[in-house]
Amino acid sequence: MKIINNISDMYEYSAKLKKRGHTAGFVPTMGALHDGHLSLVDRAALENKKVIVSIFVNPAQFGPGEDFDRYPRPVKKDLKMLKDTRKVDCVFTPDKDSMYPPGSATFVSLENEMTNVLCGASRPGHFKGVTTVVAELLNIVKPDRIYLGQKDAQQAIILSKMMRDMHFSTTPVICPIIREKDGLALSSRNAYLTPEQRDTAPVLYKSLQMAESMVELGERSAETLKKEIRRKIKEAGVEIDYVEAVDAATLAPVSAISGNVLIAAAIFVGKTRLIDNTIITI
Amino acid sequence: MKIINNISDMYEYSAKLKKRGHTAGFVPTMGALHDGHLSLVDRAALENKKVIVSIFVNPAQFGPGEDFDRYPRPVKKDLKMLKDTRKVDCVFTPDKDSMYPPGSATFVSLENEMTNVLCGASRPGHFKGVTTVVAELLNIVKPDRIYLGQKDAQQAIILSKMMRDMHFSTTPVICPIIREKDGLALSSRNAYLTPEQRDTAPVLYKSLQMAESMVELGERSAETLKKEIRRKIKEAGVEIDYVEAVDAATLAPVSAISGNVLIAAAIFVGKTRLIDNTIITI
Repeated sequence: MKIINNISDMYEYSAKLKKRGHTAGFVPTMGALHDGHLSLVDRAALENKKVIVSIFVNPAQFGPGEDFDRYPRPVKKDLKMLKDTRKVDCVFTPDKDSMYPPGSATFVSLENEMTNVLCGASRPGHFKGVTTVVAELLNIVKPDRIYLGQKDAQQAIILSKMMRDMHFSTTPVICPIIREKDGLALSSRNAYLTPEQRDTAPVLYKSLQMAESMVELGERSAETLKKEIRRKIKEAGVEIDYVEAVDAATLAPVSAISGNVLIAAAIFVGKTRLIDNTIITI
Repeated sequence: MKIINNISDMYEYSAKLKKRGHTAGFVPTMGALHDGHLSLVDRAALENKKVIVSIFVNPAQFGPGEDFDRYPRPVKKDLKMLKDTRKVDCVFTPDKDSMYPPGSATFVSLENEMTNVLCGASRPGHFKGVTTVVAELLNIVKPDRIYLGQKDAQQAIILSKMMRDMHFSTTPVICPIIREKDGLALSSRNAYLTPEQRDTAPVLYKSLQMAESMVELGERSAETLKKEIRRKIKEAGVEIDYVEAVDAATLAPVSAISGNVLIAAAIFVGKTRLIDNTIITI
């Protein structure tokens, strides 16, 4: 497993792959890896000759007062996890100053409502930071496919749209959410939870499961589903950031469940913000 | 000379070049070709195995009320000119709807003062349209080098900065201004000029030459140079859009001529907006 921390070495590595006709699958991460990330690596290894993982905690996607400084950075452990998979050919670990040299001023942004709803409403500028860094990584790594987690549903939808609009030849592949046994979606931020908070956190997924069951039993009102999800989360004494039902392609709010609907929610367990979602297809 | 009008065919062409280890030089144009464009083709042919030219009148860089609709589109003549050079391997001629399908909403922009000065002041949004389309073309064509004209000095500087910030592996090459015998810089917009206007237009270059002479004779005040340039242009009965002296790297205004200074001007000859510039190095 090759470790590259310098952009021009990454150019060279990628050019060599193209010359040899080797396909590359790319898994961009902010490190603090867990089985969710490894499931993306597995899928990338199935579909490509070479697997490239990046580890970069992207300052541009954190707002003021968010957890950029305390975001976990267990680099040694991450590299060991990736090596142990025996599926990763190259890890790209650039530093902040090479990705954003002083004076950097270029941004890639999706200028429509998709970036202002759901997580975008509580994290202004977040998705602009995400689309910018992923466009930069794609320019550097030039993969055939990029692997994104359904856990960050809005991010996956926005990045796929950005890549389509910008005519990247890279294909986005969106992979299912990986969960703990009690249903909690894997997230690097779960590490922030105290044991008590960890016990409470699965209420987020349980409330989404409840909504799925209600739909199965015939409920079609988005308002009713959202109200019930909110009630269940509040009962557990947890603060809600948002609970929304939106069109899974456009992220526009829906009033009735029909077609592909993304039900997404964000909660605060203590100071830790957790997100989860489900796509319901009628 | 291959003509490609479809993005996925262009992906394929570019992937083939990479696989064969052939370098590609790219000349993006809006058509209405003249010897200025051909000088970029010549340089690209010198430095690369393959030369790719794009012809695309980019709606995103025209403001409301600008000349998008009447911009010349002599496609047959353009293709013949390119073929006659015997130096062009591929012409990429996408249409508007494939470059910007309905619902396209992603933009690449340089969020600093560089895009607000000079032409940016009179053409709000113009450079955002330019950086967006060039990022898209680079994603599609994936050249080793891109050839830009010094004639559009601000555009060349902004695009080089955008490409550096976004970590494109493509190298920008900026080529000298090509002029008519009487000094008028070649431009597709010269075609709009009546014979009388054509006689008047060279005053723009003559005023810049005068400024160069003044600097050679010891003048160092940007204010004095700009005042004299303005005076000379007004004497010819021509309307001035701007006359500015700025740092050639940052485009920040300068008061004294020292280092690399870009003196740039835009005028209206009738309704036709013409630009020209010179870089003075002390």
